[in-house]
Amino acid sequence: MYDVDAIRRDFPILSRQVNGRPLVYLDNGASAQKPQVVIDAMTQAYSHEYANVHRGLHYLSTVATENYEAVRGKVARFLNAPSEDEIVFTTGTTEAINLVSYAWAAPRLQPGDEIVLSIMEHHANIVPWHFLRERQGVVLKWVDCDANGDLDPQAVLAAIGPRTRLVAVTHMSNVLGTVVDVAAICAGAKALGVPVLVDGSQAAVHMPVDVAAIGCDFYAITGHKLYGPSGSGAIFIKAERMEEMRPFLGGGDMIREVSRDTVSYNSAPMKFEAGTPGIVQQIGMGVALDYLTGLGMQNVAAHERALRDYARDRLAGLNWLNVQGNSAGKGAIFSFILQGAAHAHDISTVLDKKGVAVRAGTHCAMPLMAHMGVGATCRASFGLYNTPGEVDALVDALELCHDLFA
Amino acid sequence: MYDVDAIRRDFPILSRQVNGRPLVYLDNGASAQKPQVVIDAMTQAYSHEYANVHRGLHYLSTVATENYEAVRGKVARFLNAPSEDEIVFTTGTTEAINLVSYAWAAPRLQPGDEIVLSIMEHHANIVPWHFLRERQGVVLKWVDCDANGDLDPQAVLAAIGPRTRLVAVTHMSNVLGTVVDVAAICAGAKALGVPVLVDGSQAAVHMPVDVAAIGCDFYAITGHKLYGPSGSGAIFIKAERMEEMRPFLGGGDMIREVSRDTVSYNSAPMKFEAGTPGIVQQIGMGVALDYLTGLGMQNVAAHERALRDYARDRLAGLNWLNVQGNSAGKGAIFSFILQGAAHAHDISTVLDKKGVAVRAGTHCAMPLMAHMGVGATCRASFGLYNTPGEVDALVDALELCHDLFA
Repeated sequence: MYDVDAIRRDFPILSRQVNGRPLVYLDNGASAQKPQVVIDAMTQAYSHEYANVHRGLHYLSTVATENYEAVRGKVARFLNAPSEDEIVFTTGTTEAINLVSYAWAAPRLQPGDEIVLSIMEHHANIVPWHFLRERQGVVLKWVDCDANGDLDPQAVLAAIGPRTRLVAVTHMSNVLGTVVDVAAICAGAKALGVPVLVDGSQAAVHMPVDVAAIGCDFYAITGHKLYGPSGSGAIFIKAERMEEMRPFLGGGDMIREVSRDTVSYNSAPMKFEAGTPGIVQQIGMGVALDYLTGLGMQNVAAHERALRDYARDRLAGLNWLNVQGNSAGKGAIFSFILQGAAHAHDISTVLDKKGVAVRAGTHCAMPLMAHMGVGATCRASFGLYNTPGEVDALVDALELCHDLFA
Repeated sequence: MYDVDAIRRDFPILSRQVNGRPLVYLDNGASAQKPQVVIDAMTQAYSHEYANVHRGLHYLSTVATENYEAVRGKVARFLNAPSEDEIVFTTGTTEAINLVSYAWAAPRLQPGDEIVLSIMEHHANIVPWHFLRERQGVVLKWVDCDANGDLDPQAVLAAIGPRTRLVAVTHMSNVLGTVVDVAAICAGAKALGVPVLVDGSQAAVHMPVDVAAIGCDFYAITGHKLYGPSGSGAIFIKAERMEEMRPFLGGGDMIREVSRDTVSYNSAPMKFEAGTPGIVQQIGMGVALDYLTGLGMQNVAAHERALRDYARDRLAGLNWLNVQGNSAGKGAIFSFILQGAAHAHDISTVLDKKGVAVRAGTHCAMPLMAHMGVGATCRASFGLYNTPGEVDALVDALELCHDLFA
């Protein structure tokens, strides 16, 4: 039984007011709020169990190392990765995709080699590939979504040519909420011998993810969207791909031996983790994953489907509101504009006066915005603690906007 | 008046016991403990003031952005940097030095170009340069310290040749405690037109740092050693050098515009900060810097000089103990072995049974260990909350080791 009222009490920030109104936090696509158990775990770590990891034999270092390394297994289980040795800790999806770009792609791709991207990618899954275009002549091939926001897996596979070396695609659009059939893309790409990177920043927050079933080579998640701390994250990398990677960041922990003239590297995954890591935020991410597992990702997904359906119906009733994308299986993310009436920034400012937090802008997805022909949108993105009442609060505030600006 | 007893009460972990003994935490060189104000600031941020930064107009995002961006000025003032636009946030020194390597050095250095390093560098200030050796034929030139652990600035300057493009040197050895005269190195290198990167990971924790007076081009600090959170850090980069740098990590925030075929970048320093940053840990680092400034770094340095002198005297009385390096102006860091009697790991294990936390191993400084002719040492590294009584506890525990292993 999914008790959203009880769940809300787990998140201290949700009881606060903003501008004299109860906070209606609909900016989960940018970052999610944290349950008390995550905050408490970090306080506990810093107050009683803190030391650097891996390098110490003393008690606190051993405790910190055990708490930190236990998270690798939690991530592996959360994603159903075959082995925790296929999990590399990162500071989030941006670092994760840069890792793949610098460590796997850069030394392998030749001028004229191609990377296939969907038009729905977040800048984190675009700019690292633009670097390879600028620096070594790699060609970016884009696959458009349709007017509904759907991405046809066959169109992605049709874009793969003899020079394609990688497909990089989101599992869920952070703007439209579209869920991409990444399993179909992976199956087809695998048959063509092309690895697939999946950006799971949004999807892993809202549905069960099984990287073994998806069949991807890389799957990146970011802790701060998963109700965990800022600066936490991880990427699943299939063992065969990891063997093909050279180190990315250099420093402590990732080496085996260093001399004046030579250096040798640690075995994977530590080969890809340099320096003192984000010890306490990764411990916090582990607790966040435990929290999600405790709720059950199937239950979270069901709750959010109901929210999506309710929000879709209510927003459809506002005939002056233009919602971007309406994929049938989309997540509870809604981007919209008021038909030529006001800039998204003005709308979000009015909503904020009513305590409703949404994002306004291009959502780190400028190619998609250009494809949709919009400059900026407002985005309401729901999470596991949101309620139908908050959908109503959004609609009420939008109606106020319409009255003000129409 | 520096009241170390009152200061110790600011750090909750210092009141705990380990193995039935009061914790004597002498592993500050690896990572420092956190004062309650830092822990509280993070709890406050997550519980009441959390959202993603830069991209939102709603109240919580504005508050989080203001709290986060305020830290840039705090870092600038802490280091006496001319402008906060010369501060780039990082996850620590390792990422900072990799940033310089990938963004400044890699696109500029040609095969045969040289980087001058001291033999006392931490792997974080070695491995990124080994990458350039492996990948593009850069030559590493090493400058040795003497038997006392002193590094002659003139020897560093003498190593600079016509192909030298960078000097990368620590401000304080993490193994020997040696303080390097980086101002003399910078003055001489500047006259030769060679930029200098200073690894301030240790020095900034133990003494006032003035990057304007030092005259360095790059100065990296790491928050977790500065009594701040794991995963926090920053680097000072002189404006002229920053202009020479291309982007390193690609993603949100660091771009201006992204299209299918083009990308343009944000102005510095944000050009070098990709994706959702370590929002809350950087806020925590800002509070840690406030805490240090409140104590006064001159006062911290004086306290630690007294600890160093007392520890030096007491350790000198153990004629079976071999302390590595004895530079006159060194910090309160002591690396030692028991004359052939026991492995450093065994010693640290015995010390731990007495509640004394020290590090054992090669301290991410293998070239220095080879130069000193030792395989592994124990290292006791003191911080602002340590006391003469803890020096005594260390000596008592070492005497027990001597009894056990001699």
